[in-house]
Amino acid sequence: MIVIMQPGAKPEEIDSVIREIERFGFRAFENPGVERKVLAVLGEVNLDKADLVDHFNAMPGVTSCQLISNPWKLASRTYHPEDTIVEVGEARFGGGFASVIAGPCSVEDLDQMRASAKAAKAAGARALRGGAFKPRTSPYSFQGLGEEGLKMLAQVRDEIGLPIVTEVLSEEEVALVDRYADVLQIGARNVQNYALLKAVGMLRKPVLLKRGFGTKIKDFVMSAEYLMAGGNLNVILCERGITTFEDSCRNTTDINAVPVLKKLTHLPVILDPSHATGKSEYVPSIARAGLAAGCDGLMIEMHPDPAHAASDGAQSLNPEAFSALMSQLHRIADAVDVRM
Amino acid sequence: MIVIMQPGAKPEEIDSVIREIERFGFRAFENPGVERKVLAVLGEVNLDKADLVDHFNAMPGVTSCQLISNPWKLASRTYHPEDTIVEVGEARFGGGFASVIAGPCSVEDLDQMRASAKAAKAAGARALRGGAFKPRTSPYSFQGLGEEGLKMLAQVRDEIGLPIVTEVLSEEEVALVDRYADVLQIGARNVQNYALLKAVGMLRKPVLLKRGFGTKIKDFVMSAEYLMAGGNLNVILCERGITTFEDSCRNTTDINAVPVLKKLTHLPVILDPSHATGKSEYVPSIARAGLAAGCDGLMIEMHPDPAHAASDGAQSLNPEAFSALMSQLHRIADAVDVRM
Amino acid sequence: MIVIMQPGAKPEEIDSVIREIERFGFRAFENPGVERKVLAVLGEVNLDKADLVDHFNAMPGVTSCQLISNPWKLASRTYHPEDTIVEVGEARFGGGFASVIAGPCSVEDLDQMRASAKAAKAAGARALRGGAFKPRTSPYSFQGLGEEGLKMLAQVRDEIGLPIVTEVLSEEEVALVDRYADVLQIGARNVQNYALLKAVGMLRKPVLLKRGFGTKIKDFVMSAEYLMAGGNLNVILCERGITTFEDSCRNTTDINAVPVLKKLTHLPVILDPSHATGKSEYVPSIARAGLAAGCDGLMIEMHPDPAHAASDGAQSLNPEAFSALMSQLHRIADAVDVRM
Amino acid sequence: MIVIMQPGAKPEEIDSVIREIERFGFRAFENPGVERKVLAVLGEVNLDKADLVDHFNAMPGVTSCQLISNPWKLASRTYHPEDTIVEVGEARFGGGFASVIAGPCSVEDLDQMRASAKAAKAAGARALRGGAFKPRTSPYSFQGLGEEGLKMLAQVRDEIGLPIVTEVLSEEEVALVDRYADVLQIGARNVQNYALLKAVGMLRKPVLLKRGFGTKIKDFVMSAEYLMAGGNLNVILCERGITTFEDSCRNTTDINAVPVLKKLTHLPVILDPSHATGKSEYVPSIARAGLAAGCDGLMIEMHPDPAHAASDGAQSLNPEAFSALMSQLHRIADAVDVRM
Repeated sequence: MIVIMQPGAKPEEIDSVIREIERFGFRAFENPGVERKVLAVLGEVNLDKADLVDHFNAMPGVTSCQLISNPWKLASRTYHPEDTIVEVGEARFGGGFASVIAGPCSVEDLDQMRASAKAAKAAGARALRGGAFKPRTSPYSFQGLGEEGLKMLAQVRDEIGLPIVTEVLSEEEVALVDRYADVLQIGARNVQNYALLKAVGMLRKPVLLKRGFGTKIKDFVMSAEYLMAGGNLNVILCERGITTFEDSCRNTTDINAVPVLKKLTHLPVILDPSHATGKSEYVPSIARAGLAAGCDGLMIEMHPDPAHAASDGAQSLNPEAFSALMSQLHRIADAVDVRM
Repeated sequence: MIVIMQPGAKPEEIDSVIREIERFGFRAFENPGVERKVLAVLGEVNLDKADLVDHFNAMPGVTSCQLISNPWKLASRTYHPEDTIVEVGEARFGGGFASVIAGPCSVEDLDQMRASAKAAKAAGARALRGGAFKPRTSPYSFQGLGEEGLKMLAQVRDEIGLPIVTEVLSEEEVALVDRYADVLQIGARNVQNYALLKAVGMLRKPVLLKRGFGTKIKDFVMSAEYLMAGGNLNVILCERGITTFEDSCRNTTDINAVPVLKKLTHLPVILDPSHATGKSEYVPSIARAGLAAGCDGLMIEMHPDPAHAASDGAQSLNPEAFSALMSQLHRIADAVDVRM
Repeated sequence: MIVIMQPGAKPEEIDSVIREIERFGFRAFENPGVERKVLAVLGEVNLDKADLVDHFNAMPGVTSCQLISNPWKLASRTYHPEDTIVEVGEARFGGGFASVIAGPCSVEDLDQMRASAKAAKAAGARALRGGAFKPRTSPYSFQGLGEEGLKMLAQVRDEIGLPIVTEVLSEEEVALVDRYADVLQIGARNVQNYALLKAVGMLRKPVLLKRGFGTKIKDFVMSAEYLMAGGNLNVILCERGITTFEDSCRNTTDINAVPVLKKLTHLPVILDPSHATGKSEYVPSIARAGLAAGCDGLMIEMHPDPAHAASDGAQSLNPEAFSALMSQLHRIADAVDVRM
Repeated sequence: MIVIMQPGAKPEEIDSVIREIERFGFRAFENPGVERKVLAVLGEVNLDKADLVDHFNAMPGVTSCQLISNPWKLASRTYHPEDTIVEVGEARFGGGFASVIAGPCSVEDLDQMRASAKAAKAAGARALRGGAFKPRTSPYSFQGLGEEGLKMLAQVRDEIGLPIVTEVLSEEEVALVDRYADVLQIGARNVQNYALLKAVGMLRKPVLLKRGFGTKIKDFVMSAEYLMAGGNLNVILCERGITTFEDSCRNTTDINAVPVLKKLTHLPVILDPSHATGKSEYVPSIARAGLAAGCDGLMIEMHPDPAHAASDGAQSLNPEAFSALMSQLHRIADAVDVRM
């Protein structure tokens, strides 16, 4: 349920609606940064809904009270009709802007990150990715450089000037990653790690939330709602492929998810064609498709030397291929009236 | 296995290789319409393959003999490296051309088809679709107008000038549909109806083969191989969505299939965003994505009055929406250097 | 919609209801072989349903008229609450009986079929399977012996005394296969080949309908409805595995389908653990599971010499393993009060 | 790689092999509690493997050194051929024992848990389940009673005598849950929450690890390997349904996973038919199937009053239905020579 206040509603009217919301056992959430006050009413509604709607509609200063039939509230287009734009450095996601995040799967050393950042920036990427904490299927595989890797990312950011996107794997490391990262990434395997979502939801820094490979769109949006219910509204949704019966690629890109998520939510939606295909030869085709479908950005794996990457080499572009792809993407962006 | 002849190989050298192929119990298939003769060696190879390759390599007029590790031969890029272009009327699919096929799910009456064809042509579509025989999940649903519908299609083709694409459901109706259609469509449910594939493979008319919603790409290509093994090389592959756990749309568009099929085969690949999403509001996004991904065409459901369509109204565009989409598609086509 | 007549309804009352059904544009279908007359009203109901129900409820001889909300009518438990029992030779499927069908994937020669039949019978199987027409993914693979194979099956039936189950691949071969087979099998790839379903639905011989590997349960039941709408009520439903993301086996056995199908329909439900796993080592476990879940029978691939089978050797049991499995199955059958 | 020592290998020989393992940069892991010492060599092997095998084979006291081709080592049947038996209270899982865990989805209050425990025990269950921390898709849904719930579980355990199984959602709560639980459950959504797996792997208490609904079997086993690499070998694997295109149930029970997991690993494998179907009416059928397939136990949701359960009421059995099911399960257990 949301309560939409009149444009000139007085603070005491708003307060009084909030108190009334709380009196019924709900939590009120004020949508910040918008002209017109909209209050989300959070909690499970077991009372008669029609009665509640009538009750709030009759309060002074209220334009209308509406039920939202979807289980997500803060993420809903109904609650927030305009595109949310997430900005970090020169990168902008949503509202007609589509930035590209590029970089290697894992932070390996300073030279590799510096080379990646230079190539990314030269080709027009607006942010740098690199994993310092890596979620590896095997406990015996390289698990990332940890804080060392975060420091390298920060140093390269200071040198080259691209904001950094890096994954946080555990609630205990949220504070640590937050000290270095510009955007915190929550990976596919943690998309329903609610403890981690709650911890990151307490921050106000942008979050890039990847869909799980077995997660339905509606559950994916609910994971975003977890972040937002903590007060962090800077959420970027990232489609990165789902598991299906088709085995010619590592995953199946759910391209339908792009328009579906854009319809259901106001959050920016980006695509990771590297994980979604698992093969660098298919990345350009799927990157173009994502942008043409309406994505608000792309996250692309690029490594100075894919053949010797510590992880995910097979799906990483080299700098030349990445640069060539960026030229193609600019043409697509023009064709769909998006600024890259 | 394929045997590649020298550019100036003499007819008697070619004949002699063919006889040798047959002596080993295989079937020789000459790739028509190309400068350099390439002979496909069809059949299960139980002999020692290395010996066979040596044997053919030593024959006069042979450039090289190669094993093809994939189970498809005639459909393989190895056998036929250039794009096959399928042409019908002004429609061209493959080799840098991407035509749009548009029209209603079912043929309902002459007025509906005439209105559809006019709107399709006016917006730049190059072929008209319409089903006279409909594969319906329920035996109690409308099963199509049958030959009456085919006659309407033919009449509209003669009036408006667009070639017609229509489905054939059963081997017994192949001859009948062949009398009217310009392109025979084999639907998703019949993708592994091998009796039907064999019957249509005996024709030389273009075939539009739709992927099954549960069919792996490699099995889909084998179904094309069935058509081609009969001698019909004019095969268009059509991705139309697969079934997965995601339930926000009718199907999941397997956009990865576009670059994968383009790599594995030389056949034109098109996308049907209408079935792949099941909702007209998502069709423009996915149509653009398909073209940007490298499709050689699109098949889009358009109906003069979707709300009253006999079938699939929810996924059909009306003429205005279709026309608007065509403008977007022309911009994408320009951005990927494809002629629509 | 179904109309249930009173136990002593007069023939003229029944006739009059049938005429009324037809007057509204529907088709009436009389459920044969049951004490109490139940008339299924087939066709798409566009009239006001409540009015229709009232109308028929008021007719003489009618006990009650009920809407059936599922799209299947003749296959529905609502229409026919008791288990249908399909009998052929000594095999019985449904209603507390669970027979095992065993035999090789393909008919190869008379000795192989004779050995298979003897082993099957000795171990307690009630029917013999063997494919004479084989649906092979590759046009270059062994396609079955055709009518020669059917003759071998028939000869072995006459010698050993087990009824034979064999696949029909195409509507043109229905009459031919019908001359030899005791049960006609429709394979997974043809589960929505409606032309074939219609042709087989005109017979009165039992049909074993396999679920497609990408077919939803509700669409599977609709395929059975196609057979039944033609008047053939002797339909056995066979779960044989579906395609999912899991790749450790050839398919994923949808064991849930057993109780779901038993609830939705009155038809016997059997399981094919050989295709559902693709590996003979897992067949005993899954066969036991199927029987314990409530299956009305099992179809198991068994070959006298799996290592040299023309097809599907990897999933075939040898006679010793099959015999050992049958002992296990008898114990499970006792535990669930089923007669094998 | 594993190194198998001779039965009478001297401690100094074992030490010397361990030092050699570490000299090459690996970690040695001694399989505890078995007669014959087997050392697992953990780490990524980039050296020439054949050389390494030769090297260790030549060391004194070594019977043989073997490569394990699967990525899991400690969980592998090759490393540990006999069934691992996990025991807690009177519950035993594996090695011919199959215990049933029963109880409600969520701990609601003391009366509900007491009633659940009494009914579970009376019907023959050996352990009690109940969630105090609940992973809910919506941040606005009931999230469990937290430590209050753990205390209720502990009190009921002391009163009724059944060990308790309860979920831990986050690494920060591991110590807390460990204070009360007899078996720590890691839920489907956390199956690849490696931070949590590492934390729980440091304990020595039994862990019930649920498969994710989108997790491949081989990745599921790797998650168990994470637990075991920390030294916790008391791992129970739980199949609970996967997401597929089939939508008649909440999930698709992957019954094949039972024999597959039993072959790949030595760990006990149990099935949760309640989540795997999502509908209580199908639970008995699937529970029987699991036991017949070879499960080492079952986890079944049972609630004193399913219609008023705080969560998952639709899939919970009431005590009468549970008791009836247990009678059926005892018959199946006898039929497969398993002690319940």
